[in-house]
Amino acid sequence: METELSRTLGIEHAIFGFTPFPAVAAALSRAGCFGVLGAVRYTAPDDLAHDLDWMQEHTDGRPYGLDVVMPAKKVEGVSEAEVEAMIPAGHREYVRSVLAKHGVPELAEGEASGWRITGWMEEVARNQLDVAFDYPIKLLANALGSPPPDVVARAHAHGVLVAALAGSARHARRHAEAGIDIVVAQGYEAGGHTGEIASMVLTPEVVDAVSPLPVLAAGGIGSGEQIAAGLALGAQGVWLGSLWLTTTEAELHSRALTAKLLAAGSGDTVRSRALTGKPARQLRTEWTDAWEDPAGPGPLPMPLQGLLVAEAVSRIQKYEVDPLLGTPVGQIVGRMNSERGVQQVVDELTRGFEKAVDRINRIAGRSGS
Amino acid sequence: METELSRTLGIEHAIFGFTPFPAVAAALSRAGCFGVLGAVRYTAPDDLAHDLDWMQEHTDGRPYGLDVVMPAKKVEGVSEAEVEAMIPAGHREYVRSVLAKHGVPELAEGEASGWRITGWMEEVARNQLDVAFDYPIKLLANALGSPPPDVVARAHAHGVLVAALAGSARHARRHAEAGIDIVVAQGYEAGGHTGEIASMVLTPEVVDAVSPLPVLAAGGIGSGEQIAAGLALGAQGVWLGSLWLTTTEAELHSRALTAKLLAAGSGDTVRSRALTGKPARQLRTEWTDAWEDPAGPGPLPMPLQGLLVAEAVSRIQKYEVDPLLGTPVGQIVGRMNSERGVQQVVDELTRGFEKAVDRINRIAGRSGS
Repeated sequence: METELSRTLGIEHAIFGFTPFPAVAAALSRAGCFGVLGAVRYTAPDDLAHDLDWMQEHTDGRPYGLDVVMPAKKVEGVSEAEVEAMIPAGHREYVRSVLAKHGVPELAEGEASGWRITGWMEEVARNQLDVAFDYPIKLLANALGSPPPDVVARAHAHGVLVAALAGSARHARRHAEAGIDIVVAQGYEAGGHTGEIASMVLTPEVVDAVSPLPVLAAGGIGSGEQIAAGLALGAQGVWLGSLWLTTTEAELHSRALTAKLLAAGSGDTVRSRALTGKPARQLRTEWTDAWEDPAGPGPLPMPLQGLLVAEAVSRIQKYEVDPLLGTPVGQIVGRMNSERGVQQVVDELTRGFEKAVDRINRIAGRSGS
Repeated sequence: METELSRTLGIEHAIFGFTPFPAVAAALSRAGCFGVLGAVRYTAPDDLAHDLDWMQEHTDGRPYGLDVVMPAKKVEGVSEAEVEAMIPAGHREYVRSVLAKHGVPELAEGEASGWRITGWMEEVARNQLDVAFDYPIKLLANALGSPPPDVVARAHAHGVLVAALAGSARHARRHAEAGIDIVVAQGYEAGGHTGEIASMVLTPEVVDAVSPLPVLAAGGIGSGEQIAAGLALGAQGVWLGSLWLTTTEAELHSRALTAKLLAAGSGDTVRSRALTGKPARQLRTEWTDAWEDPAGPGPLPMPLQGLLVAEAVSRIQKYEVDPLLGTPVGQIVGRMNSERGVQQVVDELTRGFEKAVDRINRIAGRSGS
């Protein structure tokens, strides 16, 4: 499964795997795909350096990349405390009431919340980059908007390609103007932050909008036939995130969450502002329901919602409060019904891809297949 | 572009085109596709017979089909007047206020509204079938739920295949149990009534759910590469509706609407209950906005909403009141940017399909392409 882009990056399969787990990212690169480690949870640069050291030891010299979250809109000269102060008291009270309704215990004194707003702030992302450019990463992806011009220039000076996610052709054009190298067209069905245009429509629109820049198809892809579909739509590769959450290498914070993912159907996700303030697809839970409830105050805009709910999310995760327990994941969760190793999943993807190509050739009346 | 299903039906391309316009349906069948005439607007059986006579004369003996709307839930022993009486006065007042705000004139005395609730009622659909089975139709499709068992039996007795639209694997299984022959998997991005699962995820789920029944991929398909994607996902054909609205053979009620369709982007549709009471994708207009407005009463359930708005829609269409003027259409509207004849569109689809197959073969490293 080779495209111009996969040859440029020196990978066997044009499959890009996004994951917050170093063990998954490394296994992907070893399996001939391109592992992309999500950096949002590394608020301390040393933690990131530690895991990138580990990646170096476990990728057998294969290429890999890093995904940072650098918001397009910079919050200038405002401290986290000042942003905290913008949160209405009624919203804090609502969070308390939802947690109380489900009997969610408090964190112990001094326990930090796991999902910190700071991970969303540009300063943290820049600290991450200071670490990352000391490692031979081959790709830097930005999950929210185009990276700032100096970051693009710095990446290029290090020979690192820059990718950015886009939910519309307009976003994609803006990325191209910002000098990025690869656009990830993230369809409505994808997990995490996503727009309203489905992959079937979005992928070719983005390909047309930024040609000759390479495009990766993201959203709704979790099988070889879906990879074939994404590539038929003009993409030079596919970008998969959700599928790895139920691999044996994934280090989810709770078995209860893994069980929920394995049991969920494609209709069990919702595009909700409950986690970050921007629409992100995730498991539908009583937590997301609470933020859809017309009787509630509704979510705040980014970055306020993320700050508001950070501690609550940590408590829900720590105590595995089942009705509230969720995670960003795409509609493909309906197909994630067993735990398997990354290599086995990749083998199934490539086999499924070959079968889909056989089938399409039979339909097209092409001989030799 | 041949599949088992296309061979069974004796068509050259596994492309099914749904359209309310006989001229489009006939042109599709003449072009080697399978034209499916939407029957919902034929409230008088004679009108349907007239247009089926015309189809017979203009399809050169090629196969074609009919799409009826037979709601899964039957309204037993209730007259249209009794259903009308269930509509709250506040809703009627809201319709009046929205129309007044935009200065929409009244219909002339005795002018019927074009979009009658009666078209949604089972009795009308049954009258349509009494007419249809006198013609050599090859396919009967039902847009809402499974057709009743006697209708399926009657179709089969006439050698007519029965298709039904499904927005989830659960719906598809129900159709299979009802004895239908073909499932149309209608993704979130499709025009008209649609669920929340995007085609990329829905198509293979439905294929798995009803195998070995053939599945058509619907939603987001308007190019040869999207056809290749739909077929790669396991479908035995594709079902396209929106794309024909801007063909030269289409008889839209207003040039202003054609202009809106040609100008619209993929982000200019909304899945709204404004027209029928069930979520249906359509152009976003000030009409759909009015039914999303938290200050308004919101849409009524089917069939009340359709009854409530029938006259208003006729007035908006007749007087071409631009801000309110809309139509069911899918996200693929972003690609419908020029008026062309059906044959030319089909030629582009088949050429684009061949190019997409070439491309996927290059990526797969298959020789001979």
